[in-house]
Amino acid sequence: MSSILTVGTVAFDAIETPFGKTDRIVGGAATYISLAASYFSKPINVVSVVGDDFPQEALDNLVHHGADISGIQVKKGEKTFFWSGKYHNDMNTRDTLATELNVLADFNPVLPEAYKACDFLMLGNLTPAVQQSVMDQIPVRPKLVVMDTMNFWMDIAMDELKAAIARIDVLTINDAEARQLSGEYSLVKAAQKILTMGPKYLVVKKGEHGALLFNKESVFFAPALPLEEVFDPTGAGDSFAGGFIGYLASTRDVSFENMKRAIIFGSAMASFCVEKFGTERLQNLTHKEIDERVQDFIDLVQFDISLVNN
Amino acid sequence: MSSILTVGTVAFDAIETPFGKTDRIVGGAATYISLAASYFSKPINVVSVVGDDFPQEALDNLVHHGADISGIQVKKGEKTFFWSGKYHNDMNTRDTLATELNVLADFNPVLPEAYKACDFLMLGNLTPAVQQSVMDQIPVRPKLVVMDTMNFWMDIAMDELKAAIARIDVLTINDAEARQLSGEYSLVKAAQKILTMGPKYLVVKKGEHGALLFNKESVFFAPALPLEEVFDPTGAGDSFAGGFIGYLASTRDVSFENMKRAIIFGSAMASFCVEKFGTERLQNLTHKEIDERVQDFIDLVQFDISLVNN
Repeated sequence: MSSILTVGTVAFDAIETPFGKTDRIVGGAATYISLAASYFSKPINVVSVVGDDFPQEALDNLVHHGADISGIQVKKGEKTFFWSGKYHNDMNTRDTLATELNVLADFNPVLPEAYKACDFLMLGNLTPAVQQSVMDQIPVRPKLVVMDTMNFWMDIAMDELKAAIARIDVLTINDAEARQLSGEYSLVKAAQKILTMGPKYLVVKKGEHGALLFNKESVFFAPALPLEEVFDPTGAGDSFAGGFIGYLASTRDVSFENMKRAIIFGSAMASFCVEKFGTERLQNLTHKEIDERVQDFIDLVQFDISLVNN
Repeated sequence: MSSILTVGTVAFDAIETPFGKTDRIVGGAATYISLAASYFSKPINVVSVVGDDFPQEALDNLVHHGADISGIQVKKGEKTFFWSGKYHNDMNTRDTLATELNVLADFNPVLPEAYKACDFLMLGNLTPAVQQSVMDQIPVRPKLVVMDTMNFWMDIAMDELKAAIARIDVLTINDAEARQLSGEYSLVKAAQKILTMGPKYLVVKKGEHGALLFNKESVFFAPALPLEEVFDPTGAGDSFAGGFIGYLASTRDVSFENMKRAIIFGSAMASFCVEKFGTERLQNLTHKEIDERVQDFIDLVQFDISLVNN
């Protein structure tokens, strides 16, 4: 087991999907990442910021799941980051109804001393400057640095984003973002280009269409599990990232072969996440449930062909 | 080896993609199906209709690839079916620029006697009435009946279409069509519903996102191969169908396990098809190339997880 450090939002979300809507519930990238990773490796050292409106019981719940929250700043008299969104019927697109940055507006991450010996670093989606600041505070380069980002930073801070990307090992983005970042439509060409920008690995998340893992020589594809209902996609990408880095940290093996397994475990965590609103489904999973879900992935793609003409 | 009977269009296409455009070239569902299937099983008995503007050398080419064309009617003084389309940059959507039914307008398929002992029947996309007429002319039910169709028939002839679907074993449609046919958004629910309409198997083609195979108990997913360039998607679905039924006919095994393999061989044929304009890439493949392509699919999805907690 190795320590995981993650930076990302701890937030309130209000979500509307075709299946219902929630008032403010606890969400945020670091929340989903920590919960998903906690099934594989502990502790999860969390760097984030909330306002004093954030409930102590939600912080206690993270601790209960194995998070160290000494890196979560609580800002007196300020409010927690809030996001509200409404998903369309196809669940692949959503409208953002509200984004209130609040404490995030001037977030200056400060790593507790105990966090600085970090083996596995998961940079959740945040401004590239904050992601870089976290890297700057770690004196010995981690064994693996994984970074998530989004199109928003490509629109307004591409240079900063590229500077951050140049320092990492694994970039996780979706297919549209891979196209935007590279200027290439073909995902194969996009990956080739992005892998010249610094990362050794690229994960392209395609939502209900699965995920691709590229390095310079190889490509691996993991499907998404066909589900009867996708109840709420919020947090799926972060649950994926949490399962991915959690599995890698638990095995301390960052080979391409092991990353394939990590992609499957990450996909399994994402498939749980979308079954209920918010983080609900990630609160009380068993290892037996996770293994059964991974077996579903094996059954989904496994086939047996003997090539006689080779 | 078993005989394959296919009915479908033999046509002229004029295609424009971001990579170039063609004048009239030979296309049509039955052409792609026959070419793709011919690498696995011969003969391919073809039922279709063309005008006397259709070049003899194109018919000779089908014979050269192992097709029996005695079931292709040549209508004196009439013109061959013509389709013209332009693909958008993403290659997933296209505009139809022209559809000239010509000989197809009153196509009345007549099966030569020698075709009537049919083990594997591939009903290419055509009016459901023509597909039913072909089934009506076969005295002993084939070992396997596979049918392709499209949203157009759902829009204008849903009842006839459902009557045809009730008689078949495997339906191949795309994801939007599965949703339209079932009225369910979730593909899992859509499949469950469609499998109550008659077919024992449903193949949902998702283009660059791969294909799903459902029966009542199981689901299998095959990815599409990530390609550097998709040159021309025309015929990909029919090449898939041809490889699928060709492989099944060559093995005479219609179990779910073998259908998984057939899906992979079908996907391989589709991946070749899109590499060049029209049928060009399907003209001179080697079995070594096909096996290497299937190996690419194996490498793409293969992973090795030992579940210790089960």
